Amino acid sequence: MAKAADSKGKTLAAAAHLFRQQGFHGTALHDVLATSGAPRGSLYFHFPGGKEEIGAAALALAGEVVRQKIAQAADASDSAETFLTGFVSAMAADLEKSGYRDGCPVATTALETAAQSDVLAGAARAVFESWEQEIARGLIRFGAKADDAAVAATMILSQVEGALLLARTSRSIAPLRYAEAAVKLLANIGR
Amino acid sequence: MAKAADSKGKTLAAAAHLFRQQGFHGTALHDVLATSGAPRGSLYFHFPGGKEEIGAAALALAGEVVRQKIAQAADASDSAETFLTGFVSAMAADLEKSGYRDGCPVATTALETAAQSDVLAGAARAVFESWEQEIARGLIRFGAKADDAAVAATMILSQVEGALLLARTSRSIAPLRYAEAAVKLLANIGR
Repeated sequence: MAKAADSKGKTLAAAAHLFRQQGFHGTALHDVLATSGAPRGSLYFHFPGGKEEIGAAALALAGEVVRQKIAQAADASDSAETFLTGFVSAMAADLEKSGYRDGCPVATTALETAAQSDVLAGAARAVFESWEQEIARGLIRFGAKADDAAVAATMILSQVEGALLLARTSRSIAPLRYAEAAVKLLANIGR
Repeated sequence: MAKAADSKGKTLAAAAHLFRQQGFHGTALHDVLATSGAPRGSLYFHFPGGKEEIGAAALALAGEVVRQKIAQAADASDSAETFLTGFVSAMAADLEKSGYRDGCPVATTALETAAQSDVLAGAARAVFESWEQEIARGLIRFGAKADDAAVAATMILSQVEGALLLARTSRSIAPLRYAEAAVKLLANIGR
C-alpha cells in the first residue's frame, strides 16, 4: 500500500516536473515513466484515464506547492508590499536556479490544452483561482477590502505570469524584478 | 513564382493559426498541410529546416501582426491611456470573437520550446522585444522618458500576456478588462 502510494507520488512529481519544463504535448508517457522510475503497470493502475488524468493531477499538485508559497510569503510579511515582493522573489528564484527551465508550472499546459481538453482546462482554471484567492487573502490581511483585493489579485497574478513568460523567453530575471515594483503599485487599487 | 510565394504564405498563415490555438507540439505538419491546402512538396522546398523553421517563421509572421496593432493603437490615440486601452481591447476582441482560442500567438510556443530549441526561443524573444519596443515608442510619443518607457513597456507587456493566459483559461474577458486599468497605472512609472 505504501509502495503503491509511493509510485503514484513519484509519477505525479515526475509528470509535474516535465510538464513544467517542456509542456504537456512535448512530454510522452514513457518520459514520465523513465523520470519517475515507477513501473508501467502502476501508471495505468493509478491513472486509468491516462495522460489527461495524470496531467490534471500533476497541475493540481504543482498548483498546491505554489499556493503554499503564496501563503508562506503572507505569513512571513508585515505588509502587502513585503508579501508580494516575497512571492515574486520566490518564483524568480525557482526560475533562475533551474537555468530558466522552471517557470510557471501550469501556464504551458493551460495554453496548450485550453481549446482541447475540458479536464485539463478545468484543472488549470482551479489552480489559477486558488492562487488568486490566496493572493486576495494576503491583501485582505494587510488591510484591503474584499472586492478590491479580488480585482488586485487578478492583476497581480497576470503581472507575475506575464513576467515569468518574458523572463523565461529572454533568459533574464529583469521582467520579474520589474514585476516586483509593478505588483506593489497594483496592490493599491481602490485605496 | 507567384504560386510558390502563395503556397509559402498559406503554409505560414496556417501554421501561425494552429500554433496559436493548440501550441507547437500539439500541431503536426500534416495538420498544417491540411489547413493550408499547400502541396507537401512545397513545404519541404520552402522550409528545408522542417517544423522548427516553419515555427520560427510563423512566430515572426504572427508577431508582426501584433506589432502593427500596437503601432496602430498609438496612431489612433491622443494619450498614453487611450493608446494602451486600445491595444488591450484589440487583443481582448481577438480572444473573445475566436471563442477563447486566439490568445497570444507566441506565448504557447515560447513556453513549450524555451528549454528545447534555440531557434524557436530566439524567434519568440525577437517578437516580444519588438512588442516592448513598439509599446515604449508609443509611451515616448505621449511624453515618457526613454528609460521609464522601456521599464513600463516590459511591465505592460507582462500584464497583457498574463491577462491573456488567465482570460483564455477561465474563458472570461474579465482579466483583460482589469488589465486595461492596470496598464494605465503601469504607464505612469517614473512620473
